[in-house]
Amino acid sequence: MNEMYWITPVTGIIGLVIAGAILGSITKRSGGEGKVAEIAEKIHLGAMVFMKREFFLISLFAVVIACLIFFFQKPEYAIYQAGAFLFGCLASSFAGFIGMYTATKANVRTTIAAKDEGAASALAIAFFGGSVMGLTVASMGLLGLGTLFWMFISGDHRPHVAEIMEGFAMGASLVALFYRVGGGIFTKAADVGADLVGKVEAGIPEDDPRNPGVIADNVGDNVGDVAGMGSDIFESYCGAQIATIAIAGAAGARVAQTGGDALLEKMGAAADKVETLMFLPLALTTIGLLCSVLGILLVRLMSAKEPAVALRIGTIGSAILYIIAAFITCSFFGFNANPAFAVLAGAAGGIIIGLVTEHYTGGKPVRDLAHQGETGVATVMIAGLALGMRSVAIPLLTLAGIISVSYHFVGLYGVGLAAVGMLGTVGITMAIDAYGPVADNAGGIAEMAQMGPETRKITDGLDAVGNTTAAIGKGFAIGAAGLAALALITAFIEKANLANFDLTDQAVLSTFFVGLFIGGIVPFLNGAITMTAVGEAAFEMINEIRRQFREIPGLLEGKAEPETDKCVDIATRAATKKMVLPAVLAVGTPIAVGFGFNALNDSGAIALTGTLVGALLGCILMALMMSNAGGAWDNAKKYVEDGNLGGKGSDVHSACVVGDTVGDPFKDTSGPSMNIIINVMAIVSLVIAGLL
Amino acid sequence: MNEMYWITPVTGIIGLVIAGAILGSITKRSGGEGKVAEIAEKIHLGAMVFMKREFFLISLFAVVIACLIFFFQKPEYAIYQAGAFLFGCLASSFAGFIGMYTATKANVRTTIAAKDEGAASALAIAFFGGSVMGLTVASMGLLGLGTLFWMFISGDHRPHVAEIMEGFAMGASLVALFYRVGGGIFTKAADVGADLVGKVEAGIPEDDPRNPGVIADNVGDNVGDVAGMGSDIFESYCGAQIATIAIAGAAGARVAQTGGDALLEKMGAAADKVETLMFLPLALTTIGLLCSVLGILLVRLMSAKEPAVALRIGTIGSAILYIIAAFITCSFFGFNANPAFAVLAGAAGGIIIGLVTEHYTGGKPVRDLAHQGETGVATVMIAGLALGMRSVAIPLLTLAGIISVSYHFVGLYGVGLAAVGMLGTVGITMAIDAYGPVADNAGGIAEMAQMGPETRKITDGLDAVGNTTAAIGKGFAIGAAGLAALALITAFIEKANLANFDLTDQAVLSTFFVGLFIGGIVPFLNGAITMTAVGEAAFEMINEIRRQFREIPGLLEGKAEPETDKCVDIATRAATKKMVLPAVLAVGTPIAVGFGFNALNDSGAIALTGTLVGALLGCILMALMMSNAGGAWDNAKKYVEDGNLGGKGSDVHSACVVGDTVGDPFKDTSGPSMNIIINVMAIVSLVIAGLL
Repeated sequence: MNEMYWITPVTGIIGLVIAGAILGSITKRSGGEGKVAEIAEKIHLGAMVFMKREFFLISLFAVVIACLIFFFQKPEYAIYQAGAFLFGCLASSFAGFIGMYTATKANVRTTIAAKDEGAASALAIAFFGGSVMGLTVASMGLLGLGTLFWMFISGDHRPHVAEIMEGFAMGASLVALFYRVGGGIFTKAADVGADLVGKVEAGIPEDDPRNPGVIADNVGDNVGDVAGMGSDIFESYCGAQIATIAIAGAAGARVAQTGGDALLEKMGAAADKVETLMFLPLALTTIGLLCSVLGILLVRLMSAKEPAVALRIGTIGSAILYIIAAFITCSFFGFNANPAFAVLAGAAGGIIIGLVTEHYTGGKPVRDLAHQGETGVATVMIAGLALGMRSVAIPLLTLAGIISVSYHFVGLYGVGLAAVGMLGTVGITMAIDAYGPVADNAGGIAEMAQMGPETRKITDGLDAVGNTTAAIGKGFAIGAAGLAALALITAFIEKANLANFDLTDQAVLSTFFVGLFIGGIVPFLNGAITMTAVGEAAFEMINEIRRQFREIPGLLEGKAEPETDKCVDIATRAATKKMVLPAVLAVGTPIAVGFGFNALNDSGAIALTGTLVGALLGCILMALMMSNAGGAWDNAKKYVEDGNLGGKGSDVHSACVVGDTVGDPFKDTSGPSMNIIINVMAIVSLVIAGLL
Repeated sequence: MNEMYWITPVTGIIGLVIAGAILGSITKRSGGEGKVAEIAEKIHLGAMVFMKREFFLISLFAVVIACLIFFFQKPEYAIYQAGAFLFGCLASSFAGFIGMYTATKANVRTTIAAKDEGAASALAIAFFGGSVMGLTVASMGLLGLGTLFWMFISGDHRPHVAEIMEGFAMGASLVALFYRVGGGIFTKAADVGADLVGKVEAGIPEDDPRNPGVIADNVGDNVGDVAGMGSDIFESYCGAQIATIAIAGAAGARVAQTGGDALLEKMGAAADKVETLMFLPLALTTIGLLCSVLGILLVRLMSAKEPAVALRIGTIGSAILYIIAAFITCSFFGFNANPAFAVLAGAAGGIIIGLVTEHYTGGKPVRDLAHQGETGVATVMIAGLALGMRSVAIPLLTLAGIISVSYHFVGLYGVGLAAVGMLGTVGITMAIDAYGPVADNAGGIAEMAQMGPETRKITDGLDAVGNTTAAIGKGFAIGAAGLAALALITAFIEKANLANFDLTDQAVLSTFFVGLFIGGIVPFLNGAITMTAVGEAAFEMINEIRRQFREIPGLLEGKAEPETDKCVDIATRAATKKMVLPAVLAVGTPIAVGFGFNALNDSGAIALTGTLVGALLGCILMALMMSNAGGAWDNAKKYVEDGNLGGKGSDVHSACVVGDTVGDPFKDTSGPSMNIIINVMAIVSLVIAGLL
């Protein structure tokens, strides 16, 4: 088998080359001139400031954590795990950087294409801008994980290949904390600050270039939905593959002891297939990247159609291809079709969860929510919260169904494969996510540069589609993060290798419950911290914008330039400062519970399992509730602004505006941060599992 | 030992006699005359209408469920369990009826005492009015459980004594669904309906007798906080004792098999003490009732002091007495001090959770929340939700601590004892809870009958104390419900008696996760349903009040009487209709999961354990979050109304009013309903455990 393993990293490199080619084709287009180019450049530079600052901080933390791993991890693989960790940090940072770079180049080019060439061309650029992010995320994952697997599967370090790769996933998690949690705070601090002083106090329109915060606001869209979403998906993508490899590794250990394993029997394979079992998730994601590239081509071919149709054909086409390819792959490796059914369950489940999100944040529920504005703010709040709570039901049932089905076919290894199935075509699903902020920015630039209603109409159309895809993407990201975390937790339990984890044993049950209650606190505390952080960060932003309006003469009259970089700087600084507490919570809880209970009565692994279970359930529930309630409030406001129920300026509108303001940190900060928190907790637990 | 068991039911009867004597001493006081008497009579009659209607419906459901038990339960004890179930329904209904009867007699007498005799006398009446509820709850529990234990512990049915008693707890749960969930919908529908049409549309003050909904509103206070809270506590009280007895029974089964048991060794007792192990929780609650009576006397003696001081001395005095008595009781029965430490852990934990609730709904957090009103409604909402989320941390850590400590001393039996410890002095803690609505009503009657500022000042003082005690009581109720449910779940796991519940077994783990995700849906779906129900029920109420204002000539001029009974009728009907869905959810989920997974692959008990664990965690988290956020919003509004931050009519005030409106269903409907839902799920699971 060994001679095949190079395929994964090489496919990663091919993916990067394609991404590079797309990037080149975008940047060689005209970036506009005059005011348009100036605004776009400011957004681009702001984004780069954020990325550089974060990268600097990530480097500091990464070095410290690498040293901790090096000194405290088991000596057999400490240095390799530390190296893989740094590699993971670099890979995720690089993907984020490329994605942000491209997105902030593609936005203005989309605007210009909309003006000069029409809708089809604008769609193509916005989508290709996003696809660079999608391809880079998938490619860096394959390059990183594939290289590590290839390097370490043969030779002395073979027994520790899963542990070494866990280092890579932990690197991805660290970056996700900065980009997704910190980024979530950045984007909403900038948004709220710019809106409040600009629109409410100074009475100038949204996206007005006189507003010092408006560039930070546009940067924020990219930070949250490009870098943030990308690092979130990258974390789940790596986590899913590594968990599956770790579960396969545990099966390998059983084979070594007993000469056979139920899992291999279920897959219709002999005992010598253990290594293939470990490679299978990588093989599947390798195929998945190729399917994504084909899907992206499909969108390109369809770009004359309605944007929504073109994007849907691409995504669904690529998913169907991927599932067919999964069946062929399993057969190629000498397995029966069982593992492919697990992949199918995951892929189908991801689509269901995405569609449920679309329903709750776009369909009749949103119109009903807007109607609640007729009886005031309070009913909008109550109905939105109720909608969010209700919206968890089908996604959780779907996750339960995925577990049942995939377990039925190939045991818990199947849960890992299902996550790989859900995330296999990340190249295109992430492309469609990242398309959203590019289209949004394109509209903002058109507005700021006053480019006329024709252009604006095209960008509005692209933006509307982007909102839907973003909603689906958010649901999908939660499902994927939940499933990846579940696979990691499963791998943790396998690795902890407990002699006794029998819940009918009173000692086990009581410890499990204690851990469970501790774990349940985490999502709620994280929700409280992140929501409060947005308020505090926005407050700093508000003060700065007020100061500039007060102290820069002629700013409001348009005679002087605002110091937009200062606002970007403040948002960046606030984001970094305020993400420390959630990060400590996510990293510290498993360490404290694991080692604490070990010291107490040697029950660290049991207590930590309880904590992970409680945190997993709470994080998924809160993520869904907050994202969907927030998305619904946002779209209810837009529904009113489209002229329904009295339109802009009506009482219904102001009620819905309050809903949207509460919904902003719900859907863009606290909700998405839950994905990161649970995955960080799971991967940290897996890394320390050997020490417990 | 057998000759002692009569003590429990007899103590119950003594408690009832004392409650009856107190009730007699209250009713023999003057109920006022003229307008005061008329208003009070309407509230009283409204409350009785609600109770009668609910009792009729409970009877219908009870008969159906009793038949189901009779036909489907194991034949060895089916008829006895069905009988115990009916007994439980009757006992809880009776406690609720007496409590409501007394509270709606005591309210007007408190008003009159405040006018004629001053603060000390008014406090005494309000508190004694509440204490009838507290004593009746505890006494009916002892009478019911004590009688069943006494009847069945000897003779043929001895092996099934725990199962038979579970029927009683299930009866308590059915009544709690009607009183607490239905009652929660009643009280807020009436409140919102009366306020919206009366204050906002017709422009008449709160508690104005011209408003047709105002009697329903005052009835609602009693329904929610007397009958609802009483049935909630009654359910936990019975659940805690029965779970402990069931866990002790499982130890007994082990003794019968092996001749010894680790639990008895931990308690320093020989194998012949198994029956005493089962009686111990009853013995402790028996002692607890006596301590409660002494605490009530203590409040009586202190009634010349500040109300808050008198109530606190009574509660703490009775708790200290109870803990001392617990140590003596354990020693008396030949055990070491270990079980008493578990009781102490529970009692101390209950106080901590209560104080945390008081902090978050009364202290600095509330003032900070009110300040958020300066930047508008949205920040009040965000800060309130964040406060609610933050407030779960210490209570959950406390519960985790209680489990650890009590397990350390006497294993999982200790978790049951801790719940018994927390609920032991229910006679006085419930008295103080029920005191709140009596004081609140007394103020309302004084207002409606325009009794002048002197009287109003006294009732306001009593009311303010009542708000604090109600907040503590709510936190306490959640803690108690959580711990009781935990003990019931533990008993369920013991009873399911699974040969394999090893989480390292892949089949077990995957089934457990599937169950967990299903269970996690329940609290969120319940939250959505109950919050929506309040809105819909209020809407019906609003229509009726509008109709009366429109169709009854001279009503607004005060020349005609409103048809207040129709409003009570509508709220009652709506409450009953809207509680069906949560009831189906709570009863149906364990049955569907248990039997469904049994049919699928014989894994019903494992999946159901997962469901219970997920629902338990979610219910406790949501109950705390919603109750505390709601309480904080309520008090932030009151803080502003006291003249802070601009006072009534300011922008800050209107922002806080919205918070309060959202908080109302949070704290009085959805939050408390979580306590019932999880206990219903746990007790239903325990009842069907033998069939899985």
